[in-house]
Parts: sequence; C-alpha cells; structure tokens
Amino acid sequence: MDISVIKIGGNVIDHQENCSAFLKLFAHFPGVKILVHGGGVLASRLGSSLGIKPNMHNGRRITDKETLDVVTMVYAGLINKNLVAELQSYGQNAIGLTGADGNAITSIKRPIKEVDFGFVGDVTKVNTSLLETLLEQNIAPVFSAITHDNKGQLLNTNADTIASELATALATKHKVGLYFCFDKKGVLMDADKPESLVPLINEDIFKKLLEEKVIHSGMIPKLENALNALNKGVANVWMGLPENLLLAAKGEEAGTIIKPL
Amino acid sequence: MDISVIKIGGNVIDHQENCSAFLKLFAHFPGVKILVHGGGVLASRLGSSLGIKPNMHNGRRITDKETLDVVTMVYAGLINKNLVAELQSYGQNAIGLTGADGNAITSIKRPIKEVDFGFVGDVTKVNTSLLETLLEQNIAPVFSAITHDNKGQLLNTNADTIASELATALATKHKVGLYFCFDKKGVLMDADKPESLVPLINEDIFKKLLEEKVIHSGMIPKLENALNALNKGVANVWMGLPENLLLAAKGEEAGTIIKPL
Repeated sequence: MDISVIKIGGNVIDHQENCSAFLKLFAHFPGVKILVHGGGVLASRLGSSLGIKPNMHNGRRITDKETLDVVTMVYAGLINKNLVAELQSYGQNAIGLTGADGNAITSIKRPIKEVDFGFVGDVTKVNTSLLETLLEQNIAPVFSAITHDNKGQLLNTNADTIASELATALATKHKVGLYFCFDKKGVLMDADKPESLVPLINEDIFKKLLEEKVIHSGMIPKLENALNALNKGVANVWMGLPENLLLAAKGEEAGTIIKPL
Repeated sequence: MDISVIKIGGNVIDHQENCSAFLKLFAHFPGVKILVHGGGVLASRLGSSLGIKPNMHNGRRITDKETLDVVTMVYAGLINKNLVAELQSYGQNAIGLTGADGNAITSIKRPIKEVDFGFVGDVTKVNTSLLETLLEQNIAPVFSAITHDNKGQLLNTNADTIASELATALATKHKVGLYFCFDKKGVLMDADKPESLVPLINEDIFKKLLEEKVIHSGMIPKLENALNALNKGVANVWMGLPENLLLAAKGEEAGTIIKPL
C-alpha cells in the first residue's frame, strides 16, 4: 500500500476553524492515511482548571500521575474522539487509537538518569497488523500521543516520535510518506520570514545548515527525526502549513521536502 | 461466531481492586467478547472539580456541552484507555471504542419534548463489520457509552442500551449472550436479601413479578431491555455479580438468567 502518516500539532487543533479546514483536507488526501495529533495547549488549560500545576524541570515537562490522567482525558478522550466524529461527518471513516488499543504501540518508561520524567514512554515496538487491517478497509487510524508498556501502564509519548515510529514500522512493507503540519511554511532560514523557506533538505544540506547555525532549537530534533525515518526506509518527509498538504501530496513546491541523498 | 457482550457498571470500575478482579475474569472469559462500561461516578467527580454543576431535571441528568466534554474525557479517555491497557497486561488484546470510531454506533440527538436532555443520543444503527473483523482477530472491543450522529456531534448514550444494541445487531448473524454485571446477585425479590434471588425470568415471569410489584424502579427498564434483546434474537441474557461471570458462562446457577419463553 501507499500510506501517508500525517501529524498535526496542538496549535492547529486548538482553533476550531483551522482544525475543521485541516480535517476536510485530510479527508480528501489521496490514498490511505494515518493521523497523529498533539494537544498540549488544551491539556495545560484543563490541568490548570483542576489546580494541577505544570511540573517542569529545565523547561521540560514532567508527567506525574495527575498530569498523565489529564493528558489521557484530553488527548485520548476529548480531542481524539471529536476529531474522529468530525472526520466521519466528512465521509472519512476513522478510528481513534492510543498505543494501548490493539496493542499498536508499546513503550518503556524512560529510565531515570539526571531527571525522572515520570510517566513518559520511549517507543519499543509498533504492531502493524491491526493498522494494515484498518487501512485495507479505508479506515484512518487517528493516534493520540499515548502509548503503553504492556504491563498496564499508559505512558505519555512525543507525538512527532509516534508519527516517525509508525512511518518507519510500516515502511518495511509499504511505501510511506511522512507529513508534519505546523504553523510555519516549512524549514525557514529566518523564522520570521516565510520567503526564507528551505524547499529541499537532505543529509548534506542538513549538516551545512547546522554548521551555519541556520537551524536551531526545536527544529533540530524534528529534522534529525525526519532523516532517521528516511534512513529506515520512509520514502519522503514533508514539513509545512496544513493548508498546503494537498499541494505537497501532488509533489508541488509548498513546504520543505526532506529526501534521501 | 459465539459472541459475549458484557456490561459493567460504574460502581465496579470505580474501585481499583474490584475492577482489576473483573478484568482478569473478562480476560479469561471463554470465546470472543465485547466489553461495555459506564463510569458516572468518576465523571461526576471530575465535573465537580471543574466547578460544573450537575444539570438535573426531575432526577434525570441533562447533558449540556460542558458535561458532554467531561464524559468524553472520563469515559472515552481516562477510564476506557486504562481498561484497555490493563486488559493488555493480562494478555487480552483489546481496543477502546466509542460509537464514532469506525462509525460503529450512530445515534440521533434525543428529540426535545417536555425536556431537552441535551447531547443525549438514541441509537439508530450498529455497524457490525468492523466489530466482526476485530473479534475474528480475538481483539476485544471495549466500548465507552458515547455515540455520534455522523454529522460531527458526539452524544452521551446509556451504557445498558449500548450493550443491548450491540448484542441485537450481532445476533442477526451470530449466537450472542448478553451479560450485565452490577452490585447485586441478580434480580432480587427483596433488594436487601441476596437469598431472594430470582434465578430465571421469562416474559411470563416478568409480567407476574410486575403485577405483584416485586420489581420496580431501575430494574424494570433493565428487564424490558433484556426481554427486548431476546425478542430480537439474542440467545440469553444474564444479570449478576461480576465475580460470578465465569460460573454464568459455564451455565451454573449464579445470578438471574433471562430466557425466551
């Protein structure tokens, strides 16, 4: 099968209009596809309504038990089920999943080194058989960023990682494209200037951009993640604005394409 | 297939130990099976933490937008995903669903008559094909009591009704048993006396018990529901304590069996 794995960030789904526009595009996206979503902003809002203070360590969130419950409610419940219901209304059959469902994605609790990140999971295995069964029936799996350790424990997992792991696992048998939708036109030389878009990145260009310190902070792990997926057999990776997703599917220039050398 | 549809009430899943004991029994329950769960107590607790006051009319809950969000978070998120993760730990593959997932159960918003019950759905259709695909792979669907109208709206739906509707829809092609687990030994002549158990009920016995005013309040719709399921082809209905579930599966006397005449 030709499979597309499409990830949207919390800032897209946080705005009802943007989210609906995206979901319509997703429904019209050609071929079989998987959606992976974040949802951090809504989770933070619910957490603060419940008086749960974000537990941070050097700018990184610690997932304590209360926070895990909040993200399970918000990601796997509120956001996931509303996304699925809206996709159904556009004629796109969909099914909301966490890694626990169908034992789709197992993980281990991140080992404690300098910091105990709490109930955070690093992916150990993706079981593709259920996903293939669903995709064959043209049912789009919609993943929230929660996995499980197969011992009864849910674990909070990075949504970008989930998208990459799904893509690489499926790439062993299928042609897989990986799409990251966020609030920038793609990888930019200057974050404030959409015209500074880098349309194509490969391993060499990435190294050059790193040396020249053109890319930094959050974009570095995203690109490393993308290059890693390519090395593991994913056909292509794309990053850009959700509204340019269909152009990207047609191979038109509308974001950053990351390709093997 | 021989399919069992098993419903557990919120009072079982509200106690960690009882819930774990039940899930182990469910995992060992013979054949392919579907779990349907409630969760009202936890939802009420979260609602009150968020300052959402239960909106009641003549003792019946009105599902306003805020309440719908809370039940979606608690039923479809927190409870459902933890049940699934725990079942996985007992070697029972499972997948958490609402009616929106795979378009499994559609409903219509209850028409406004004297009361507007808000976002409450009356089931219109069960799509059995995805469920059959999952059951064939020995993946147990775990349903929270939420459906959708296929127009993008999630709807709160009675969990007993969901269990009956699933059972009757599957009964057109399969042999289906329907099991209601709650905190009584079964249907009792005197609610405080377990020894007053009525071991067998059919249409005639039900009418007699009704005339004699032995059964009343919440038990009447439960039994009407059960008899209705039998009339629509469900092979047998059982009601009793979750710990007696395996005895019931073996046909031993351990609760109330509702059978056709």
